[in-house]
Amino acid sequence: MTFPVIGMVGGGQLARMTHEAGIPLGIRFRLLSETPQDSAAQAVHDVVVGDYRDLDTLRSFAQGCDVVTFDHEHVPTEHLRALEAEGIAVRPGPDALEHAQDKGLMRARLTELGVPCPRHRIVADPADVRRFAENEVGGFPVVLKTVRGGYDGKGVWVVGSEAEAAEPFRAGVPVLAEEKVDFTRELAANVVRSPHGQAVAYPVVESVQVAGVCDTVIAPAPGLPDALALAAQELALTVARELNVVGHLAVELFETADGRVLVNELAMRPHNSGHWTQDGAVTSQFANHLRAVLDLPLGDPRPRARWTVMTNVLGGDFPDMYPAFLHCMARDPGLKIHMYGKDVKPGRKVGHVTTFGDDLADVRERSRHAADYLRGIIDE
Amino acid sequence: MTFPVIGMVGGGQLARMTHEAGIPLGIRFRLLSETPQDSAAQAVHDVVVGDYRDLDTLRSFAQGCDVVTFDHEHVPTEHLRALEAEGIAVRPGPDALEHAQDKGLMRARLTELGVPCPRHRIVADPADVRRFAENEVGGFPVVLKTVRGGYDGKGVWVVGSEAEAAEPFRAGVPVLAEEKVDFTRELAANVVRSPHGQAVAYPVVESVQVAGVCDTVIAPAPGLPDALALAAQELALTVARELNVVGHLAVELFETADGRVLVNELAMRPHNSGHWTQDGAVTSQFANHLRAVLDLPLGDPRPRARWTVMTNVLGGDFPDMYPAFLHCMARDPGLKIHMYGKDVKPGRKVGHVTTFGDDLADVRERSRHAADYLRGIIDE
Repeated sequence: MTFPVIGMVGGGQLARMTHEAGIPLGIRFRLLSETPQDSAAQAVHDVVVGDYRDLDTLRSFAQGCDVVTFDHEHVPTEHLRALEAEGIAVRPGPDALEHAQDKGLMRARLTELGVPCPRHRIVADPADVRRFAENEVGGFPVVLKTVRGGYDGKGVWVVGSEAEAAEPFRAGVPVLAEEKVDFTRELAANVVRSPHGQAVAYPVVESVQVAGVCDTVIAPAPGLPDALALAAQELALTVARELNVVGHLAVELFETADGRVLVNELAMRPHNSGHWTQDGAVTSQFANHLRAVLDLPLGDPRPRARWTVMTNVLGGDFPDMYPAFLHCMARDPGLKIHMYGKDVKPGRKVGHVTTFGDDLADVRERSRHAADYLRGIIDE
Repeated sequence: MTFPVIGMVGGGQLARMTHEAGIPLGIRFRLLSETPQDSAAQAVHDVVVGDYRDLDTLRSFAQGCDVVTFDHEHVPTEHLRALEAEGIAVRPGPDALEHAQDKGLMRARLTELGVPCPRHRIVADPADVRRFAENEVGGFPVVLKTVRGGYDGKGVWVVGSEAEAAEPFRAGVPVLAEEKVDFTRELAANVVRSPHGQAVAYPVVESVQVAGVCDTVIAPAPGLPDALALAAQELALTVARELNVVGHLAVELFETADGRVLVNELAMRPHNSGHWTQDGAVTSQFANHLRAVLDLPLGDPRPRARWTVMTNVLGGDFPDMYPAFLHCMARDPGLKIHMYGKDVKPGRKVGHVTTFGDDLADVRERSRHAADYLRGIIDE
């Protein structure tokens, strides 16, 4: 059979769940993992342990892969360009991926495309942050972000004064200043696009963040007007097309009180805001990411239930989640638990739970209860 | 974390799909495979290549596994008893599994339990077959089965005369003669039971066989009277309880024109008649088999769609299915394809497709078309 070999760089839970979705597709899955204990490395047959920052490692990993894709954005862009120049199919390609790696570049390009973003500019130092705050966005607080390397709230600061603005500059990475948007909630518009230009859009979801980390995703976003949902999907499809994204694109959005959406972040890989699709959509984001990077026709993104709610399971003070896992299964036979095989550390994402049904309050409560019980912050 | 290690004996597609279902459960999966190329061996990290007929191989495989389970019935019963005597958790255990390994024992025990079966007895030679035919079931044809080693129509003969009855005796294995039941269709009642006695029953399905091999499964069985569906589920739960089955039990049934069900075969593992549950039920047979053998609370077996249809993909004359695979995805974005990573050989089960929806005729046609197209017997 000529079923292809896919190489995924990064051994985290996204690779683990992408492998899971690849098993029924009959594809061969090859993993480049940082350690043999990584989440995905436990579940994949063909594992190469190595450093994704090393070009020779990437080059030898890519040998025999039909396509190389990623579970994170941290592979150096110049390495991706080198692989592509050597004829390796890198998807998404570096020209697209750079916009998920560099927030400054992303803001510049989206603005050029007329895609609504918070007001922003690259700032030189704390005094420049003060000028940005006072002259461009009506004063502090403002948001500062290192243009590269941040995730899950890391590399992001909300500062109330010039004095507080010193910290972000210490890393020596360019700093982007952004207006602190007065949003009513966060949304995500997830789309998948293939090299020949086919694209599908998932229902727009609400993403509830706690301390900068995704806590709960509700699909579809409750009470979102159809016109705004459509606008958000069209925006995401435009970004995917104009940036020539291949694979899954998550567009994180702010919804404002006056009924607009502004782009917060982009991710060009399966994304936490799409985990609900495993149990809640006809085709999951993981399966569609694989189909896209292999240039296979895409699967139906429609939801299978009226409401689907995903809640992340963070590590708590109890290193052994197994008794709680058992309790949650006993309490709720319809609960879908997804564990990542990771050691429990306080605040670390170690799994997620998904529930679905017709009654949103009930679906949310079941998801919330299971996540809190697994974390150990409730005991009944 | 104390998440358990499960060891599965047998590297076929059932193990492949059980591993897939185990990934979200966070369990560690260890495989005993006959070759490194087996279907499951391609997808599992921790693979031991060895012969399941060798006790030392089994013993060393079982080291470090919390539970050992199976993707087939062919491990010698005495080896299972030896492992159990050494303190290894073998699930289902040999006392249960023997009834899926030995059809003579199965018939005797079910009859003792009052579970309806075709008329049957062990026969000594072709002349004895003639006596069974003439004196016990009203004449030829009768069904002959070797009591051990058969599957997918192998080890089963329908004979019309004493002369035709010679073949089954050549293997030197005891032969069971059975009444050829005049059934209207075949059904399957699938249940899952855990060591502490919790059990769940899936909807009773219709199983359409072609040349002794499962072709299509329709969930739920169309037009099955509620009372008969309930009786079939109760029958399967009774068999599971009385035989102390742990894990998934498939009870293959004949439905007769006068509204009865008779047991055809038993399988104590995930089964082809339960593949529809991957896409069609809240909890798949694979996930519930794992939950059962680990003595975890069982998941909701209820269907997620009005109708779900699974059709097996058999190998045809074209060794490369990939172009057809692409075509099927393009034609039907809601199609769920499950490929096993096996080389295509004519008549070999290499995958299955599943469709679901509200209109049974449409759901069947989509499933049929995809399976036939993948096999290469239609080209539009």
